[in-house]
Amino acid sequence: MAIKEGLRPGGRSARVQESIHSAVRALLQEQDRASLTVPQIAARAGVTPSTIYRRWGDLPALLADVAIARMRPDGEPADTGSLRGDLRAWAEQYLDEMSSEPGRNMMRDIQACATPGYCVGIISRQLQIILDRYPDEPNPGVERLINVVVAPTVFRILFASAPLAVEELYRLVDIALGQ
Amino acid sequence: MAIKEGLRPGGRSARVQESIHSAVRALLQEQDRASLTVPQIAARAGVTPSTIYRRWGDLPALLADVAIARMRPDGEPADTGSLRGDLRAWAEQYLDEMSSEPGRNMMRDIQACATPGYCVGIISRQLQIILDRYPDEPNPGVERLINVVVAPTVFRILFASAPLAVEELYRLVDIALGQ
Repeated sequence: MAIKEGLRPGGRSARVQESIHSAVRALLQEQDRASLTVPQIAARAGVTPSTIYRRWGDLPALLADVAIARMRPDGEPADTGSLRGDLRAWAEQYLDEMSSEPGRNMMRDIQACATPGYCVGIISRQLQIILDRYPDEPNPGVERLINVVVAPTVFRILFASAPLAVEELYRLVDIALGQ
Repeated sequence: MAIKEGLRPGGRSARVQESIHSAVRALLQEQDRASLTVPQIAARAGVTPSTIYRRWGDLPALLADVAIARMRPDGEPADTGSLRGDLRAWAEQYLDEMSSEPGRNMMRDIQACATPGYCVGIISRQLQIILDRYPDEPNPGVERLINVVVAPTVFRILFASAPLAVEELYRLVDIALGQ
């Protein structure tokens, strides 16, 4: 996904992005996502289609970016005072968000992108913030947390008859922590 | 997915199913899956559309069933003489199959089904066969193997820039075995 990070808030590029995101959100209120087109979004946002293609590459990438922006955590993960507590709180919120309708739509949009790794980057940064709070505790590493906690959460939502129960999620946090 | 299992091979119902599966496979050679319709498949298979709706419920379920049949393991998982070895061999084959184009299509079709749990059932039976071979070893349970080995394999294919490396997969097998 050709999304450039580190936009200056309030800069011209950020304003253009926000007008395009707003156009997508407004159009999704009015019609099915399957019928959405880039020229339509461009017309609503008051930009040329090539502005959209240059920035996002294709429509699935733009839809995924809008979905991610909607789901993106507003602040730092909750600080409960312990590594295990922080990971439990983060994982529970993640499970809630991903099992919701916007979460499921986001996962579908991301899979339709040519380069779906962007979302894992956001998750990784959130988990790293938690790990950095506890430099004296054994560090499982972000990779292990994604494999053992995030992946089963998503897998169960997409492929099983029911999402993980919270107790199962807690058990996976313990496995990730080597407990 | 309203797929009835335990068809007698060679029975009338099995023959009808095979003719419908063949029709889907043939049509997918000729045209894009997005343009496929149930009446078209029915005409090619020489059945009525209601035969298809009665058995599968909807088109995504039929497509997922055809994809699963194509990926379904032909026999029992490889017997290497050790639990760890069998799980490594099975996981490596699963990683190979799911990262292939038919594997990715199958995962997409299954997500489009109303009840995507069918595929997890097939995986569970394969893993249970392996666990049953080693009654004297500590048993991690199928659920833990799916969470810690299968889920990251699928997650990385769908959402990361590269599939798991084989060494990472082996490491996950060890985590699942509590090692």
